[in-house]
Amino acid sequence: MEHMERNILLTIQYDGTAYSGWQRQPQPHLRTVQGEVEKVLTKLCAMPIRVEGSGRTDAGVHALGQRATFHGEFSIPTDRIAFAGSNLLPPDIRITEAVEVPSGFHARFNAKGKKYTYRIVNSSQKDPFRRNYAYFVEGKLDEDAMRQGGAAMIGTHDFKCFQAASQSPKEDTVRTIYALDITRSGDTISLDVVGSGFLYNMVRIITGTLLDVGSGKIRAEDMGRIIKSRDRTRAGHTAPPQGLYLAEVYYEERREENG
Amino acid sequence: MEHMERNILLTIQYDGTAYSGWQRQPQPHLRTVQGEVEKVLTKLCAMPIRVEGSGRTDAGVHALGQRATFHGEFSIPTDRIAFAGSNLLPPDIRITEAVEVPSGFHARFNAKGKKYTYRIVNSSQKDPFRRNYAYFVEGKLDEDAMRQGGAAMIGTHDFKCFQAASQSPKEDTVRTIYALDITRSGDTISLDVVGSGFLYNMVRIITGTLLDVGSGKIRAEDMGRIIKSRDRTRAGHTAPPQGLYLAEVYYEERREENG
Repeated sequence: MEHMERNILLTIQYDGTAYSGWQRQPQPHLRTVQGEVEKVLTKLCAMPIRVEGSGRTDAGVHALGQRATFHGEFSIPTDRIAFAGSNLLPPDIRITEAVEVPSGFHARFNAKGKKYTYRIVNSSQKDPFRRNYAYFVEGKLDEDAMRQGGAAMIGTHDFKCFQAASQSPKEDTVRTIYALDITRSGDTISLDVVGSGFLYNMVRIITGTLLDVGSGKIRAEDMGRIIKSRDRTRAGHTAPPQGLYLAEVYYEERREENG
Repeated sequence: MEHMERNILLTIQYDGTAYSGWQRQPQPHLRTVQGEVEKVLTKLCAMPIRVEGSGRTDAGVHALGQRATFHGEFSIPTDRIAFAGSNLLPPDIRITEAVEVPSGFHARFNAKGKKYTYRIVNSSQKDPFRRNYAYFVEGKLDEDAMRQGGAAMIGTHDFKCFQAASQSPKEDTVRTIYALDITRSGDTISLDVVGSGFLYNMVRIITGTLLDVGSGKIRAEDMGRIIKSRDRTRAGHTAPPQGLYLAEVYYEERREENG
């Protein structure tokens, strides 16, 4: 069998609790998801492998469908990579799929959009089983107000007010939010946001802002003005990392849904 | 305010992943749930506190409703104990309730029965988020056969075949199982067992045996003979600890339900 250069797109799930985020860190004592995946693929492919993720996730943030590409000439069949890789990975990281993609396809540069989910436990009692998987909010939240505030975010806007203040002021901060859905199931509120791309901490600041709407600290009808202000200090708090999930990465152009 | 000796019954939830079980261990480096609860209550009550649990749980086993009693003369109002205790406890342990009970009431000796839940993920893909909270079983399970096998366990029997082989052979091994329910929700199978009391590892061996029935290794119609044999080697494997939850402890005599 001839070894041709192949380019592989992985789908990866991880519980981010134990990791210093996705991105490999120069300090060897910091465990990262990228670092673990590269270590295992380097073994499976019998050559040094570098993977490129669709984007970073912070420490404690989870992924249901992170994507990453890597390429090289190796002998392991593509359809063995997910199973063999998952077996070698620690149990809090799984490769759920590996497919061959055209040379030059890149998990980040080819991404057309992403979906993030943020989970909130709205209850009077903290749940020891979900402490690493959701944001605990005690006071009863007004979901209708949260939905009204969220509706103002849909569309193409300059979202500078939802960008971590530490970021370079020069970056283009215009993005498109295609959908923002808030659903409740029992004591769990899920916020699903689909967008063309996201600024640093954007989903966590959107969530914190909508929680401030839900608890009455910010009025839903002020949301348009807050966005227009481009002022981080007018938006709400940054929700903590453990409620955030990178749910999906889209590589097809979004088509408008009719009907 | 006069400090009378009070006897307090606690309800405790915990994620057992990080603990060497419920019971305090002589080795100080072993973290236990009892040890953490005693440390916090000793602080809150400003006197050395020893709690008595309704029973032990092994390392990695969880509790939705463990019960424990402690007594002494202390000034903290009973209705402050759950909140103040939970605030001082690590986030994987919560005191959900504290009530005053008559002097002499004991969490273990007064228990009339218990309910355990065992969670199984029956899926072709391991789930990194549930690795510490369920037992992953890949092959499709026959739940009807499992229910049929479970039905043979209901009632009063000598359950020696479901006792860890390491236990003293002199112990009385007759127990009553009041109910054994198997339900599926998506890829999750839950086994709920209510009984008068349980032998060491009994729920985990019952679960392993019913999984061996569900996968065709043991025939459901042999279950009566396996119980009668009193032979541990004829029952199935011991399911791992992380799927097991002490769900409830009953202090009332069980009444037969009619209709």
